[in-house]
Amino acid sequence: MAELGANRWGKSQVRVSKIHRGEAADDISDVTVSVLCEGDVEAAHTLGDNSGVLPTDTMKNTVYALAQDHLTKDLEGFGLRLADHFLDRDSIHLVTVELRERVWQRETATGFLGGGSVRRVARISRGVEDTASSGVEDLVVLKTRGSAFTGFPKDDFTTLPETEDRLLATSITAEWVYGESPEDTAATWGLVCRTMIDSFFGEWSESVQQQGFLLGEAVLEAVAEVSEIHLHLPNQHHLPFDLSRFGIDDHGIVFHPVSEPYGDIALTVRR
Amino acid sequence: MAELGANRWGKSQVRVSKIHRGEAADDISDVTVSVLCEGDVEAAHTLGDNSGVLPTDTMKNTVYALAQDHLTKDLEGFGLRLADHFLDRDSIHLVTVELRERVWQRETATGFLGGGSVRRVARISRGVEDTASSGVEDLVVLKTRGSAFTGFPKDDFTTLPETEDRLLATSITAEWVYGESPEDTAATWGLVCRTMIDSFFGEWSESVQQQGFLLGEAVLEAVAEVSEIHLHLPNQHHLPFDLSRFGIDDHGIVFHPVSEPYGDIALTVRR
Amino acid sequence: MAELGANRWGKSQVRVSKIHRGEAADDISDVTVSVLCEGDVEAAHTLGDNSGVLPTDTMKNTVYALAQDHLTKDLEGFGLRLADHFLDRDSIHLVTVELRERVWQRETATGFLGGGSVRRVARISRGVEDTASSGVEDLVVLKTRGSAFTGFPKDDFTTLPETEDRLLATSITAEWVYGESPEDTAATWGLVCRTMIDSFFGEWSESVQQQGFLLGEAVLEAVAEVSEIHLHLPNQHHLPFDLSRFGIDDHGIVFHPVSEPYGDIALTVRR
Amino acid sequence: MAELGANRWGKSQVRVSKIHRGEAADDISDVTVSVLCEGDVEAAHTLGDNSGVLPTDTMKNTVYALAQDHLTKDLEGFGLRLADHFLDRDSIHLVTVELRERVWQRETATGFLGGGSVRRVARISRGVEDTASSGVEDLVVLKTRGSAFTGFPKDDFTTLPETEDRLLATSITAEWVYGESPEDTAATWGLVCRTMIDSFFGEWSESVQQQGFLLGEAVLEAVAEVSEIHLHLPNQHHLPFDLSRFGIDDHGIVFHPVSEPYGDIALTVRR
Repeated sequence: MAELGANRWGKSQVRVSKIHRGEAADDISDVTVSVLCEGDVEAAHTLGDNSGVLPTDTMKNTVYALAQDHLTKDLEGFGLRLADHFLDRDSIHLVTVELRERVWQRETATGFLGGGSVRRVARISRGVEDTASSGVEDLVVLKTRGSAFTGFPKDDFTTLPETEDRLLATSITAEWVYGESPEDTAATWGLVCRTMIDSFFGEWSESVQQQGFLLGEAVLEAVAEVSEIHLHLPNQHHLPFDLSRFGIDDHGIVFHPVSEPYGDIALTVRR
Repeated sequence: MAELGANRWGKSQVRVSKIHRGEAADDISDVTVSVLCEGDVEAAHTLGDNSGVLPTDTMKNTVYALAQDHLTKDLEGFGLRLADHFLDRDSIHLVTVELRERVWQRETATGFLGGGSVRRVARISRGVEDTASSGVEDLVVLKTRGSAFTGFPKDDFTTLPETEDRLLATSITAEWVYGESPEDTAATWGLVCRTMIDSFFGEWSESVQQQGFLLGEAVLEAVAEVSEIHLHLPNQHHLPFDLSRFGIDDHGIVFHPVSEPYGDIALTVRR
Repeated sequence: MAELGANRWGKSQVRVSKIHRGEAADDISDVTVSVLCEGDVEAAHTLGDNSGVLPTDTMKNTVYALAQDHLTKDLEGFGLRLADHFLDRDSIHLVTVELRERVWQRETATGFLGGGSVRRVARISRGVEDTASSGVEDLVVLKTRGSAFTGFPKDDFTTLPETEDRLLATSITAEWVYGESPEDTAATWGLVCRTMIDSFFGEWSESVQQQGFLLGEAVLEAVAEVSEIHLHLPNQHHLPFDLSRFGIDDHGIVFHPVSEPYGDIALTVRR
Repeated sequence: MAELGANRWGKSQVRVSKIHRGEAADDISDVTVSVLCEGDVEAAHTLGDNSGVLPTDTMKNTVYALAQDHLTKDLEGFGLRLADHFLDRDSIHLVTVELRERVWQRETATGFLGGGSVRRVARISRGVEDTASSGVEDLVVLKTRGSAFTGFPKDDFTTLPETEDRLLATSITAEWVYGESPEDTAATWGLVCRTMIDSFFGEWSESVQQQGFLLGEAVLEAVAEVSEIHLHLPNQHHLPFDLSRFGIDDHGIVFHPVSEPYGDIALTVRR
């Protein structure tokens, strides 16, 4: 006999934009939302009884309906508002709202440049368990000096040479938890990002692992509200292209960047 | 003061192909591997001491080195072989190997058609905890009849009409656990997929949720070794395009398929 | 002073699906359409006078409106119907309609498997010039034997070894012109694809270039209506992974497939 | 009988990075190159004679080999150097080199932020015909005011309302020809981009078409060396989400951005 285990339903990739009209200038929010619910819907699965299944289409409509009054630069606040809305329903016991904001850079009072890879992220769960995190995805950084990798173990399959100073590139994805909520979530998000950028460019590292630990340490020091930060740092390899085989004097400045495979480094740093 | 929390390192997106030379015909394996390790590398993060950090480049080399003798149609077996190899090292306490196989369809003794979205997946962890799962990603199915969605709750933001019979399309991603290892993991993987396809096309459903439960039930019934299956069934919406506003008699056969947003349904079915 | 040169406007990526209801079985069409128009719209560009600019939103609506009666398995026929519709308008002098059909493989009377990379393509221009072509995109093929590459010129930067027999993989994209329209465009499309598959697997080649010429020759021989075919054959490299540097006896069966860079081969074959 | 028509061969997606070491600061180039050749290779296609077929692998090696001395911020210059290199070979009559540079934004002497969508492009052909163009891809801009669309023709399938002032977003792709080569191609590229950004945000338009013409006009006025510019301006639709159906007072500030379909506008502006 089959029985139902953990399950959830919701709507993902709901794209909503909002113009914040101002006297002197407009602002823009450009957010992709997902809503996932858990609750008392076993009968839907086993008997085809949909009386508890709030349609995912309604979830989508609700995102737009609440955006007009509640979507502000406080991404976490909008997530909380949405989560609480769905939690009001008896058949729903846990709601997780994930929001990804595309960052537009102001140029004029009504003009913005886009196209950057960076996403601001907020994840809010409400119900049988209340959790929240904030984050950033795809903050792409590269430095031409300031990173080494030596002293590692060798075996039969080792071909990597030791390097005292190498080009290091990564796309930082970070997710952090606030011990205490910051007053201005947008400004605090900016401060965390700026701190990571400055740390990455300013601190010498012996490995991606150490670079990551230094990043986390810097954030904990600079932003009092952050209690813990999780970092994912894919090593975007720039392979030295060996020119000496062509009889060329190789200066070590020409590289072959590859997108796969990549070194896959992740760590958590906490107080 | 900052301290190190959970961490891991490894290599992702290692692409390896292998020709299995035969008397009458060749076969081909086309696998993307990721290796992730956890262990005793705190000093690497906090002190820059890399003596325990097996380079991810070496992990990549190892995948190719072991592929010649050990990569067969038993994807789970290759994963296990790789995991055990890395676990031999003192500084490594847990290894997770994830393998994704692109499926090529035989046409001749040495010729194959590719390009399908389906991936066979195996995930193996060895060390402080031993776990394993098998799976399939992006098995795309569509039926023009045989699915309804009625009797759902309505609120102020409901606009979805009830539907007695609708087009249903999804891209099945499933991950299952074997209670007992099957003798032939490749054949068993094929049986699970075939069972899901037959169930999806053969069973009427009142919702994606019920369709998913029926899929899981069918697999548990058809494949004795499976003890539990997790299903992810994104509802790939085909929105009816309203022709009546043009004064056209609308037959309900013209749709606007959208890739975002999508209904996001997931569930686990177990014995 | 600036003046307007060539210009066009239209709607791209219009996704339309249609169920063909049948007594015994349904069929499905899943097509992405683009409509591009040229005409007498200089005043729109230079003066802001939109009286000749059919909105691209209306083009989109028209695709759906005409699909109910006119979208059949004759993709070229639907393209022609659409092109002629827009050409009726005085301000439009040339219409190009491009259609890409996703191929679904029938499993039951109402059930279909999808997810393949192959697209059937038709391109129709009507107006100051009438042209048409048919095609296929991303027909992915791989053979483990039957292709060589030797006798090529060497220079200071040559590192590629000669190979008497290699794995060859490509993703065939072909576009052809019919001298005389086939009676059944869907069946003829299938025959062209089948002919290319059989030729690729059946014919030995000394290079991708020769493989491509043989493909074109085979199509011209098998399909009387085709007068000319253009082939694009990216060489999807499978780099031999050198195991001998690990002291392993290298059997030449382990490869590192790479998606970039790729050999970029294109040619036209005609009667 | 089949005969060979137009044909070409080359290597695409060759990714090369280079560090420009400086006293005070480093700089970085990150370029993707494709090389396509035409020439006297009929025998390769029809007879399997590869004596004229420079391997695409050698083309790739050559890109790296020449990068050390010749890849500078003058992207067009590197393209020309590469094209002339391959044209030296007797069997090659036309070489087209296409270069796409990823733009990194300097933060420190050795640190750079990346991840932007913008690509600087140069396209150089040398041989039986010499041509060159420069360009930019995916310069993403959005304005919350300053664009209308009214006075367009209506028909049975019109549903689009007239709009006096709308949000307008696009991803500018432009390709231009220099009548006279600029002294500093990098600075001139920056000036063209800056001019387009300022024009887009500064000029009211009655349509995407007019916005595009104004863009082209502004570039021709600001940059004396440009003789002609081709613009592609996909209208990235932000559909107003109708809140009034929920009984909400709709302020016209909430949108549903869609990636498909899109308005597809292109035009050339010349002196």
